Amino acid sequence: MGATHTEGVYHVVIVGSGVAGLSAAVYAARADLEPLVLEGPEPGGQLTLTTEVENYLGFPDGVGGMELVQRGKEQAERFGATFRHGVVERASLEESPFALELSSGDVLETRALVVASGASARWVGATNEDEMMGYGLSTCATCDGAFHRGDDVLVIGGGDSAMEEALFLAKFADSVTVVHRRDELRASDIMARRARENESIEFRWNAELSEIHGSQETGVTGGTLVTHPAGHPRARLEDGKSVETERVDVGGIFYGVGHVPNTEFLAETSVERDETGYLRTEPGMATETAVPGVFGAGDVMDPDYRQAITAAGTGSMAALDAESWLEERALEEESTPAAALEASQ
Amino acid sequence: MGATHTEGVYHVVIVGSGVAGLSAAVYAARADLEPLVLEGPEPGGQLTLTTEVENYLGFPDGVGGMELVQRGKEQAERFGATFRHGVVERASLEESPFALELSSGDVLETRALVVASGASARWVGATNEDEMMGYGLSTCATCDGAFHRGDDVLVIGGGDSAMEEALFLAKFADSVTVVHRRDELRASDIMARRARENESIEFRWNAELSEIHGSQETGVTGGTLVTHPAGHPRARLEDGKSVETERVDVGGIFYGVGHVPNTEFLAETSVERDETGYLRTEPGMATETAVPGVFGAGDVMDPDYRQAITAAGTGSMAALDAESWLEERALEEESTPAAALEASQ
Repeated sequence: MGATHTEGVYHVVIVGSGVAGLSAAVYAARADLEPLVLEGPEPGGQLTLTTEVENYLGFPDGVGGMELVQRGKEQAERFGATFRHGVVERASLEESPFALELSSGDVLETRALVVASGASARWVGATNEDEMMGYGLSTCATCDGAFHRGDDVLVIGGGDSAMEEALFLAKFADSVTVVHRRDELRASDIMARRARENESIEFRWNAELSEIHGSQETGVTGGTLVTHPAGHPRARLEDGKSVETERVDVGGIFYGVGHVPNTEFLAETSVERDETGYLRTEPGMATETAVPGVFGAGDVMDPDYRQAITAAGTGSMAALDAESWLEERALEEESTPAAALEASQ
Repeated sequence: MGATHTEGVYHVVIVGSGVAGLSAAVYAARADLEPLVLEGPEPGGQLTLTTEVENYLGFPDGVGGMELVQRGKEQAERFGATFRHGVVERASLEESPFALELSSGDVLETRALVVASGASARWVGATNEDEMMGYGLSTCATCDGAFHRGDDVLVIGGGDSAMEEALFLAKFADSVTVVHRRDELRASDIMARRARENESIEFRWNAELSEIHGSQETGVTGGTLVTHPAGHPRARLEDGKSVETERVDVGGIFYGVGHVPNTEFLAETSVERDETGYLRTEPGMATETAVPGVFGAGDVMDPDYRQAITAAGTGSMAALDAESWLEERALEEESTPAAALEASQ
């Protein structure tokens, strides 16, 4: 890395400022590790796409997604965490202290690293999705399904996550229509069967969502679907081929087309990732990755639950694990932990 | 079990009303599973022993332990969870629906069970500990250590948990004195070495805490230590043998004599527990126990982190896992999940 090392060596850098990164920052700061939190391209993470969070324990009347993130940031700063904007392009994790090269060219050095860079829900590219996300358009049925009692809703996608969303929504919604661009599901047999056997769930085959109707004031009021008997209608639309267009009235639209963990910057390191890119951590309740001193927290290491409260939980675990690791390492260097941390500043 | 079955079959019963049980209740209730939460002998769990919680993400100015619990309960009730007092004496978990026999003699039936009965910190039996717990007397250094910057503090115990508490407190306190009733530590070599090499940590051997001084207004102001050269001085005190008594001025006292998970009621079941009694759950981020349909959440399955935010996280995980399990089971019974749940009510 040719760039200039602009700062001293941090005890711990936390990559990501969603709830996992914030909870890690609170714990690390409270343990006097003076953490630096790198806010990436989506400061505050996925929660900032949600208007109302009802299932984060401690807020009986709910809390805004953005508000929860701001409260967490204030809390971390209060204990001494610092925040800066920075996207990690590349990480050198051969040995601690690790080097993080930012897109700005700056290089940061840190003894321990908490990766809390999250996962990004895939969007489908329908017109108005930027405006309507969080206002009746959602990427999380578990989070937002309960707001749609009695509504007709669409679920976009044909894999396991779409089936999960549809099954969860079927408890609340009057009807759930799964919109899939092909004529067969990509989902596992068991999930596909569960969805097919549910009386509240219908399927629109060879169809895609092209536009979302409504406003931030009214919420989602409908969607435009395009259909072609051979599938993938939107690609055909762009090719100028004829597709059928239909407008449907619905009160909610859920994207179930999967998530991508933000771990590309770890590609050239020894940190192990699964085929989708999720971090592999030690078995059990644990946050250690394959590289000693590198810990994972939040959605980036949890493809299954992906809840704000679980991300906050694993964030605190990662900070506690990083703290133990730093202390053990200081001891191995044959000095007292306090002295070693002191000397390194 | 000879007692009367007094109610219908629940979808899910949650044993325990600490943060883990409350978070499970919020998720289960929001998924329309109408959970019943059994409040045991310590409603609200260990958090009710803490005055101020600073590290639970979302509360930049901190939140009272009791207040957080009350907010969580209100949140769970808002979505339809019901609460009742009940101590489970015995559980029959051979097959779902499971039967829970309460100390009142009532028997509850439930398809899925979330065990969130927590762990109780051991107390040492010193005079005034009931009054001073949460007012300078604590069982959790990670939670309360930061309140003792510049204080002299005592840590009671000689095992790994006492060493962990002492090492964490050494970052904040002016001095940490470990009080141990024998003349050698029970802690592992690595932990003992870390504590011995820390300049801020001293040891009082063959000593025990007999009394705590201070009030809820002033906080802890000191403690009375008893010492006998052959160890176990308090036992000798009761035997009428002569021990030395000394009063020390300290601003905080931490009990580090371990925790006992509240899982005795599972003794005759197939749920696996470790030697201390902690639930064994599936490897990875998971809450399944050895018995299908029984899930663990919070400190009862987490001997390591034991934080409010991690307990809330695993509570939500257990509820989501219970929900999936109920749906799969309903499907196996060859009906749609919705119909099966409906029919069972």
